[in-house]
Amino acid sequence: MTLPVELVSTGSELLSGRTLNRHAQTLGERVRALGLSLVRDTTVRDDIPAIREAVQSALSRVDVVFVSGGLGPTSDDVTREALAELLGRKIVLDQVSLDVMQRRYDRIGRRMTEQSKRQALIVEGGEALSNSVGLAPGERLEFGGKVLFVLPGPPDEFHAVLEDHIVPWLKQRYASVAPAAEKIFLTCGIAEAEVARRFEEAGLAPAGIEIGYCAAPGRVEVRLTSAQGDEKAVEAAGEEARKLIGEFVFAEDRRLMEEVVGQLLRDQGATVAVAESCSGGLLGHRLTALSGSSEYFVGGVVAYSNDVKVQQLGVKPETLKAFGAVSEETAREMAVGVRERFGVDFGVSVTGIAGPTGGSVEKPVGTVFVGVADRSHAWVRRFLFPGNRVRIKEWSTQMALDLLRRRLASLLPKEGDGGGRGP
Amino acid sequence: MTLPVELVSTGSELLSGRTLNRHAQTLGERVRALGLSLVRDTTVRDDIPAIREAVQSALSRVDVVFVSGGLGPTSDDVTREALAELLGRKIVLDQVSLDVMQRRYDRIGRRMTEQSKRQALIVEGGEALSNSVGLAPGERLEFGGKVLFVLPGPPDEFHAVLEDHIVPWLKQRYASVAPAAEKIFLTCGIAEAEVARRFEEAGLAPAGIEIGYCAAPGRVEVRLTSAQGDEKAVEAAGEEARKLIGEFVFAEDRRLMEEVVGQLLRDQGATVAVAESCSGGLLGHRLTALSGSSEYFVGGVVAYSNDVKVQQLGVKPETLKAFGAVSEETAREMAVGVRERFGVDFGVSVTGIAGPTGGSVEKPVGTVFVGVADRSHAWVRRFLFPGNRVRIKEWSTQMALDLLRRRLASLLPKEGDGGGRGP
Repeated sequence: MTLPVELVSTGSELLSGRTLNRHAQTLGERVRALGLSLVRDTTVRDDIPAIREAVQSALSRVDVVFVSGGLGPTSDDVTREALAELLGRKIVLDQVSLDVMQRRYDRIGRRMTEQSKRQALIVEGGEALSNSVGLAPGERLEFGGKVLFVLPGPPDEFHAVLEDHIVPWLKQRYASVAPAAEKIFLTCGIAEAEVARRFEEAGLAPAGIEIGYCAAPGRVEVRLTSAQGDEKAVEAAGEEARKLIGEFVFAEDRRLMEEVVGQLLRDQGATVAVAESCSGGLLGHRLTALSGSSEYFVGGVVAYSNDVKVQQLGVKPETLKAFGAVSEETAREMAVGVRERFGVDFGVSVTGIAGPTGGSVEKPVGTVFVGVADRSHAWVRRFLFPGNRVRIKEWSTQMALDLLRRRLASLLPKEGDGGGRGP
Repeated sequence: MTLPVELVSTGSELLSGRTLNRHAQTLGERVRALGLSLVRDTTVRDDIPAIREAVQSALSRVDVVFVSGGLGPTSDDVTREALAELLGRKIVLDQVSLDVMQRRYDRIGRRMTEQSKRQALIVEGGEALSNSVGLAPGERLEFGGKVLFVLPGPPDEFHAVLEDHIVPWLKQRYASVAPAAEKIFLTCGIAEAEVARRFEEAGLAPAGIEIGYCAAPGRVEVRLTSAQGDEKAVEAAGEEARKLIGEFVFAEDRRLMEEVVGQLLRDQGATVAVAESCSGGLLGHRLTALSGSSEYFVGGVVAYSNDVKVQQLGVKPETLKAFGAVSEETAREMAVGVRERFGVDFGVSVTGIAGPTGGSVEKPVGTVFVGVADRSHAWVRRFLFPGNRVRIKEWSTQMALDLLRRRLASLLPKEGDGGGRGP
């Protein structure tokens, strides 16, 4: 059973658009590994009544509450005041924290202002948690079976206090809590609704296991979770799920498609080059996002205009004339052309209509051909992708990478073909 | 006086560490411009009682509440159910939304499953808000002086429904709310701390005007805001600010660097091609992110390996041997080479060390050369960028685009030079 915990993030800048609140993600990920489950994040302004009410409300629901931000030196840092009011306690100077601050100021030869000293204040009765990155310490407060952790707002300070003090404490206190068991499938080429339909038709709804989904262009994450930490039940359900959707699974952990493809290329000592039209460079960008990609990626051509397709990739002008730039034939010649000209094992191509203009009845916006060529064959798939320009570029590169992955994993028929299916 | 509003973000993935919740930032920023103030974001799991309670609580405090997520086709999408329970209303099929979905499925030649149809459900009595990016519509519900907006969870769909339907509605309904007056400068090539130092030294601290900053790789946004809506005071402060940082300003509204560059190219009827090494395709991707980019962008070469630099761009082998692939000379030959081979007005190049490996004492990780060539000159700048691989790629493309912008705006010296400065 996992233990529910809550977070109260304080800071007007988190609500005005100025700053992105990353605390829920950081904390949620970290405590999950300890068997704790973050069930709510309440983000409020630097306002004493709002902070007091949000923390009180969280304490009424769960036994462990984290509060971030508002510990700095300026007048809008009011978290201590709000907590002191809520608990009916005083605010006191923590001499140890003040000494640490004094030594840091001495080291850089600067005088500590009265304003700065405010950061050594804590709520009475708590334990100060030293901050190895910034000045203001965190704090742990315990009362009536509840635990309140106070953390500084800057993400690197939040992280430092969490790792240095809070995680070790939680590990010891909640050693008996079993973390949730989880099995993940990342799929490509099957829609979220279709995965759900297959599971439903097969009656895959094992007791005690929660099925979750998360969809992105060209990728559906399927999660089987046992909150009770029942590894065996999760494994068994995973076996069943694999039978239903296994052909679409490209990873059983949270890896990016480009990582999976990169690993396959590296394992096989193979090299690749890209020929991109509508994706405009995104395919190369994704393939080079990982360190060490120069082992297998040599480069490519962004062939946005027809002239570039002909001159830099050797696409035949008659092909463009007869079938158009967005066609199976052009995609094939682009993949073959870049492979030959760059002297690599695999050529990968993308050509399509990212929109919002340029569509026709036969080839509406979202029509994209992706191709893969090896030394003897070329495979091309036609798709019609939904969404806006950015989405269509994401879809295009994801399906091009998946086609290369299938070739590398020997999942493609030996004869090149032009079949395909929608996303 | 601003009107307080609240957000309830739903989604277990936002609390487990899997997904970063960007909605509060997006919404906070957007409604601020309309004179509304986001005062709280409550993030809860895909859990009917939790969603119901959070929305009820928000409605007890403010008159306008936004709810995001949980509108998808699967069983963990329960936001409609929670809202229907809370309001004591039924869930009904929205025929218009279903028809739109059906046409989209027809267009890509696929069958709509029963599961998918769930996405056309709305809470009775509301107004469906069509989703131009994904399938599930949003909804506006009004009751007893309160307004509840329901938005889909994927960030681009959230954004689309917000811009297409909610912002126009809010503008009309709350036209009498005086929005804050704001002046924005987007700068490139100057650090946030340096902007602040210049303002401080010049004593730029006008009464009633708040100065805010937001930094990203290669971009610092400077905001001058009057919460009282004093347009004149903001304009006057803007005039002063322009004197201090004007040479670094690339936009006075929230445009992307690629939009500014694209507009300049279009205005001048000029064409561009790119030669990318360490950026791996990101420069082309950015230049093609905007509709209509084929008017000025013809393509490019991703030259990751030295062989590709020589064969596809005409970089001299002796240049690579004498100066290395990451050098002023190579950057210049790449820019000149791609311009000539692609027959365009401008060639832009990027070559550098994105890391984490490959650095040396003379050329540490983050060393990047960017170049721009026109018919008669070439300009190269050397930089040392901070951060990880992804950041260095972002910095590189931003500074390459800025160099092209400066050339297009006739801000570069006529003679090509190799000088440069850090970010």
